[in-house]
Amino acid sequence: MSGSKTKKIKPQTLKGFRDFLPEEAVKRQSVIDKLRAVFELYGFNPLETPALEYAEILEGKYGDEGEKLIYKFKDRGGRDVAMRYDQTVPLARVVAQYGNELPMPFKRYQIQPVWRAEKPQAGRFREFLQCDADIVGDDSINADFEILSCLNTALQKLGFKDFAILVNSRKILGDDQRLISILDKEDKIGKKEVLRLLSQTIRSDEKAEKFYLSLKNIKSKDIPPRLKEILKKREELNLSFQPFLARGLDYYTDLIFEVKIPKYKGGSVCGGGRYDNLIGMFAGKQIPAAGFAFGFDRLVEAMEQQGLLDLPKTVTKVLVTIFSPELQTNSIEATTKLRAAGINTELYPDPETKLDKQLKYADKKGIPYVIIIGPEEIKNSTVTVKNMSSGEQKNYPLDKIPKM
Amino acid sequence: MSGSKTKKIKPQTLKGFRDFLPEEAVKRQSVIDKLRAVFELYGFNPLETPALEYAEILEGKYGDEGEKLIYKFKDRGGRDVAMRYDQTVPLARVVAQYGNELPMPFKRYQIQPVWRAEKPQAGRFREFLQCDADIVGDDSINADFEILSCLNTALQKLGFKDFAILVNSRKILGDDQRLISILDKEDKIGKKEVLRLLSQTIRSDEKAEKFYLSLKNIKSKDIPPRLKEILKKREELNLSFQPFLARGLDYYTDLIFEVKIPKYKGGSVCGGGRYDNLIGMFAGKQIPAAGFAFGFDRLVEAMEQQGLLDLPKTVTKVLVTIFSPELQTNSIEATTKLRAAGINTELYPDPETKLDKQLKYADKKGIPYVIIIGPEEIKNSTVTVKNMSSGEQKNYPLDKIPKM
Repeated sequence: MSGSKTKKIKPQTLKGFRDFLPEEAVKRQSVIDKLRAVFELYGFNPLETPALEYAEILEGKYGDEGEKLIYKFKDRGGRDVAMRYDQTVPLARVVAQYGNELPMPFKRYQIQPVWRAEKPQAGRFREFLQCDADIVGDDSINADFEILSCLNTALQKLGFKDFAILVNSRKILGDDQRLISILDKEDKIGKKEVLRLLSQTIRSDEKAEKFYLSLKNIKSKDIPPRLKEILKKREELNLSFQPFLARGLDYYTDLIFEVKIPKYKGGSVCGGGRYDNLIGMFAGKQIPAAGFAFGFDRLVEAMEQQGLLDLPKTVTKVLVTIFSPELQTNSIEATTKLRAAGINTELYPDPETKLDKQLKYADKKGIPYVIIIGPEEIKNSTVTVKNMSSGEQKNYPLDKIPKM
Repeated sequence: MSGSKTKKIKPQTLKGFRDFLPEEAVKRQSVIDKLRAVFELYGFNPLETPALEYAEILEGKYGDEGEKLIYKFKDRGGRDVAMRYDQTVPLARVVAQYGNELPMPFKRYQIQPVWRAEKPQAGRFREFLQCDADIVGDDSINADFEILSCLNTALQKLGFKDFAILVNSRKILGDDQRLISILDKEDKIGKKEVLRLLSQTIRSDEKAEKFYLSLKNIKSKDIPPRLKEILKKREELNLSFQPFLARGLDYYTDLIFEVKIPKYKGGSVCGGGRYDNLIGMFAGKQIPAAGFAFGFDRLVEAMEQQGLLDLPKTVTKVLVTIFSPELQTNSIEATTKLRAAGINTELYPDPETKLDKQLKYADKKGIPYVIIIGPEEIKNSTVTVKNMSSGEQKNYPLDKIPKM
């Protein structure tokens, strides 16, 4: 790299793109780690696909609106390439490309960024993380249960106490996409407005109300058998039957669900369902699948809001200060010992910096403990441990420091 | 997503781009986890920057050759954008952009993919992971030590037994880039060829030999004081003084180093050094820095070769089979209990599949244990645990299963 040609360039990110400075990155990483642990607990294994694909792999898959949002360009070899837009189409490609190499059912999770050229606005980003888990190649009801159970466990392990997984079946909604999308809005626009829109579309007040009530007060005998079976685990899996739930995407074939966190108003943090006709698109045959995707940004936002991400600003547990250049060896040795004990430790590197400034540095970074080793401490073979939030200072022999 | 418009498209990845199927992704993730743990042990915190930057942020930073390899395009808003090419220029941008928000020294690690339009060839990819750790804003020798110690610990924790960190100082090499790059090749082309090339360049056999020997047999008094100080920890940090080491990039200002793993022929798995004039490029002032970057693909290759990645093909520990549709409830209950005990457990979802096929599935996936719950087991309140590599089968009460 040659810094020589540098002219003055404004340091800035593109609209809709974000840096995650350590404080934020630590939080995000903690959520990812928890999701990974749950996915793996349920027997899902990781999959990674490239950021760039042949454009034709992605084109024609996301509807007219989606198509306009794909980051697409010609690479230096003149190939039409496109940036990952979601993780489902790459999954479909992988399933077709590797065929028998992938034992079925293929259970994979995938946590990678995707890019969409959305209009930048509050809560909309052009680069964001998706967290998907899917079971491909099995259409048994147990696969549906595994998906719902994994999601339920994930929400619990993330710390959510008050949530519901709203479930429905595409099969009870009929085929009229216009009516479905009206019903889907009921929680936002209310019954009256739904009825007005239905009447307008069906051109009959009476039929509209009948249609509305037939779903609202659906009789047990009209619930498809599979959904009925799923609802038997209503309590265990925190399910709530929501006969108007439609989910935007039209590729679902049976079970659909989304997560509702009552106190969070930013929308659904997770959605999914069964989609038996999509994964086979490249393979040219039907391959059943079920799964879900977390909207990572909303998830993090909801967790922040509910106090589930009250983490330290840093993964570092302790800053070892240097009292003076002559005494730095003691601080370096202490650092080595703390690390050998598995404690995330930062050594303040510059021995010329005043202790006061080193303490301010720890404070600004949010490092919870500071160790000071001055002449007194060396004489007594101890170190001073300062708790940065309480201000409390105590002396310990280095190998007797209590758990931090 | 609308699968409707799908025509027959060949499922393939772009040249130089790779899918990582679970077996490979599991290995990569295990290496990333270990690196992260060591970085955090040393007080580095994570940073994430966007995949896309304004092109001008990246342009003019990587030399003429590098410039040609940047993935660059106009986005839908007509902006010139470019894909992340390394993690050092984004770091420099971040340091300038957030200024006082980042307490100095700023210690960050960054593990993200970068993209380079290289000619695809063995071992060269167009998308690859970089793993960087840097200390920005401190030019003390302790920062150099921290970097070298972190690297040494990382290599040990990854399992390497036989390695050296070759170190040198840019200051002993002089300023003639032609001579430096000849010396840098000595381990590949040998002394004789180095002397021939030096003579050709200097146009004097005598001067060439003198120059060569002045470095080869460098006297203690000619070693710059800082490097001399660093070499005092030669044993502790597995350092080896290599006066011909130059590192390709010309932005290093003092300490330079790279990792040599004698039995691995794929090149250096890690390199770094001190570069005091680069990070300030956007800030318009000098900001000292030192750090290193792992070449992740080489690292994984070297570990594979040395048997340090003999991991199971899957993170799943056990497959719970379903003996028959009537007995599936028992398998589902067992699955729930195993997961509650923290064991990564897959339930074979389809109750209609023959047991034999379920066992073959576990075998193909490399799942180490299989649990079978048939009528016999239910009668005795036990489960059968089959070790898939030894073939051994034993019966246990479910809550008495030994550690898997």
